[in-house]
Amino acid sequence: MDRSSRIKGVLAGGSDGWEVFHKSRAMIAAGVPVTELTIGEHDIRTAAPILQEMHRSALAGHTGYAAVPGKDALRDRIAKRAEERTGVRTTRDNVVVTPGGQAGLFAAFMTACDPGDAALYIDPYYATYPGTLRAAGARPVAVAARAEHGFLPRGSDLAAAATGAKALLINTPNNPTGVIYGRETLTEIAKVCQDRDLWLVSDEVYDTQIWEGEHLSPRALPDMADRTLVIGSMSKSHAMTGSRCGWIIGPEDIIADIIDLATHTNYGVPGFIQDASNYALAQGDALEREIGAPFERRRTLAHQVLAAQNVVRLVPSQGAMYLMLDIRATGLSGSDFADAMLESLHIAVMPGESFGAAAAGHVRVAMTIEDSAFETALRSLCSFAEGRASRAA
Amino acid sequence: MDRSSRIKGVLAGGSDGWEVFHKSRAMIAAGVPVTELTIGEHDIRTAAPILQEMHRSALAGHTGYAAVPGKDALRDRIAKRAEERTGVRTTRDNVVVTPGGQAGLFAAFMTACDPGDAALYIDPYYATYPGTLRAAGARPVAVAARAEHGFLPRGSDLAAAATGAKALLINTPNNPTGVIYGRETLTEIAKVCQDRDLWLVSDEVYDTQIWEGEHLSPRALPDMADRTLVIGSMSKSHAMTGSRCGWIIGPEDIIADIIDLATHTNYGVPGFIQDASNYALAQGDALEREIGAPFERRRTLAHQVLAAQNVVRLVPSQGAMYLMLDIRATGLSGSDFADAMLESLHIAVMPGESFGAAAAGHVRVAMTIEDSAFETALRSLCSFAEGRASRAA
Repeated sequence: MDRSSRIKGVLAGGSDGWEVFHKSRAMIAAGVPVTELTIGEHDIRTAAPILQEMHRSALAGHTGYAAVPGKDALRDRIAKRAEERTGVRTTRDNVVVTPGGQAGLFAAFMTACDPGDAALYIDPYYATYPGTLRAAGARPVAVAARAEHGFLPRGSDLAAAATGAKALLINTPNNPTGVIYGRETLTEIAKVCQDRDLWLVSDEVYDTQIWEGEHLSPRALPDMADRTLVIGSMSKSHAMTGSRCGWIIGPEDIIADIIDLATHTNYGVPGFIQDASNYALAQGDALEREIGAPFERRRTLAHQVLAAQNVVRLVPSQGAMYLMLDIRATGLSGSDFADAMLESLHIAVMPGESFGAAAAGHVRVAMTIEDSAFETALRSLCSFAEGRASRAA
Repeated sequence: MDRSSRIKGVLAGGSDGWEVFHKSRAMIAAGVPVTELTIGEHDIRTAAPILQEMHRSALAGHTGYAAVPGKDALRDRIAKRAEERTGVRTTRDNVVVTPGGQAGLFAAFMTACDPGDAALYIDPYYATYPGTLRAAGARPVAVAARAEHGFLPRGSDLAAAATGAKALLINTPNNPTGVIYGRETLTEIAKVCQDRDLWLVSDEVYDTQIWEGEHLSPRALPDMADRTLVIGSMSKSHAMTGSRCGWIIGPEDIIADIIDLATHTNYGVPGFIQDASNYALAQGDALEREIGAPFERRRTLAHQVLAAQNVVRLVPSQGAMYLMLDIRATGLSGSDFADAMLESLHIAVMPGESFGAAAAGHVRVAMTIEDSAFETALRSLCSFAEGRASRAA
């Protein structure tokens, strides 16, 4: 039996970019100790008080169908938090709860694009982006944010690619680069969206992990609230990756449409997970800072380690749980470098190429292991790079 | 900002068929006591031992990203259960875990159909079906299963509608009618699927609620395993509606495609919910019978109540948690009957019309309240119908 053309096209090239990750997992399964710096998952688990609240809710009987848009209390909490942090008037009618940020991304593009519409995204990109656009029937168009521009997209490049496009997807703070888009970049982006009548889908799931400067949501820019869909999630901010609880914030009429879509694509999010999420959000900044602190600390460590050498260059990142390292001085591609690191040092990092052509010659390092092991791994990475660089020289 | 055409089309007519339900909820919220017989949700909550297992799993650290296809142990359990109950060889590679049966339905049609392909479904139907097909970009084509044929679809009607179709959606045991498709009906369905090269999407979420006869999965019919996608769920079988845990069983290559799709539409199902589901399934038939027992008991009560009068006719159903009642002798439509019941008796039932034209002049009664209250409500319904019938006569 033949499946649909669209489903065959979701992966397009057939590679999901996670080969190093899969190889590392296979080595671990075979008993080889691997230092695992590939995926964006905290080295802590969801905090026990959050899980206790989930259990309390479940035992109290919140195990039936929850309202498809999300529970009122959680929608109110998300709306209030967004309004306080952005200054944009936000009510529960601007919020739909989704089973994770990924489901939010998919729903946003189902809503913004019809099949065949172009959708722009920025290269380097989070691994699922182009497949998500394809799954929603859109035609993904990459716009490079070049290393020499600090991995920031330029308005002129976006405008040049916008013909036939209905939407633009951005991510700040950025995975994989750790770069935060400043007001100037976001203003250029907003102008393109307004000039070309594009939806802006703004993936802000790292918005609590800010190590320098500040996070600015483009929904707060003038005349942008009516064309911006913000993707949020409990995953990164509260170490709740496995709970699959996220949301979309957007204009009321579009949120109403997305709720209709949700009725037909997933029928809502478990009520006890929503109650746990509401409890976690109620802890405010303090808990978010606590969850982010290890990454900030390890980033400081990384600055110290990298300052002692000249081969590996740290992309000047400001947020999120990753480091993007320029290893072009080694003469290796990111893929070859990552493969060699895994083979010879049993350290797994992601090749930049897994995140797009613009990140070629880079590797992404997740700061997701205990500090001293992280520092040791980074030192090994630098020594390895120095050895390769002197060979290349 | 304009949204996509497809999203505007999900609800098509603009009504979701749930007006009586919404009105009843509003009355309840306003303090009016309403006997609520509209939705398919148990009057018990998820059993405490299942929730304890969920909590144990969460505290044990299963709060990170679970494997997108589902945890091996749960996939194995679902596969073994399907193989034991159908005789069809089934392994974990035939199974993908989804965030609820609704997500399974959506993914199945994303996989079976390209935008614009026709997809057949049977009227009367579960309320989300046509919208689910539209959300997946397919063109829904209703095929009537008429009251005079016991609400069973006929092969000739299906064949007549199959031109241009890629898939057929069936549901047995059936919501809203409670009818179970026997071997003869399923054989006719299989023949049409084979003759017209259709995918068969078989929604079997009520497969543990069998009060007469037996449940037969069409996947077990000759040469059907390679073109059948079975939708399963913990919701109805284990009173876990709010946990949003379901699955699709199908051919390995298609399941692999659906896993790729899941990476881009939801990124998996919470691991602690999967562990709880695995625990619940491990309890076997005994727990499933216990969960279903109240519906079987109330169905017996309903037979007794209805035997004492001649106006309301019970559709001879064999399974699920609903009664479909023919109230045409009252001279009212299902909608008018349901409206009048809600207004004058504060009893909420679903109009047959909410489930399609073929159920006009009927109402669906969910057997989801305590036995004596259920019996009282049914007696009131019959008295009300008798009064209307004598007025109509």
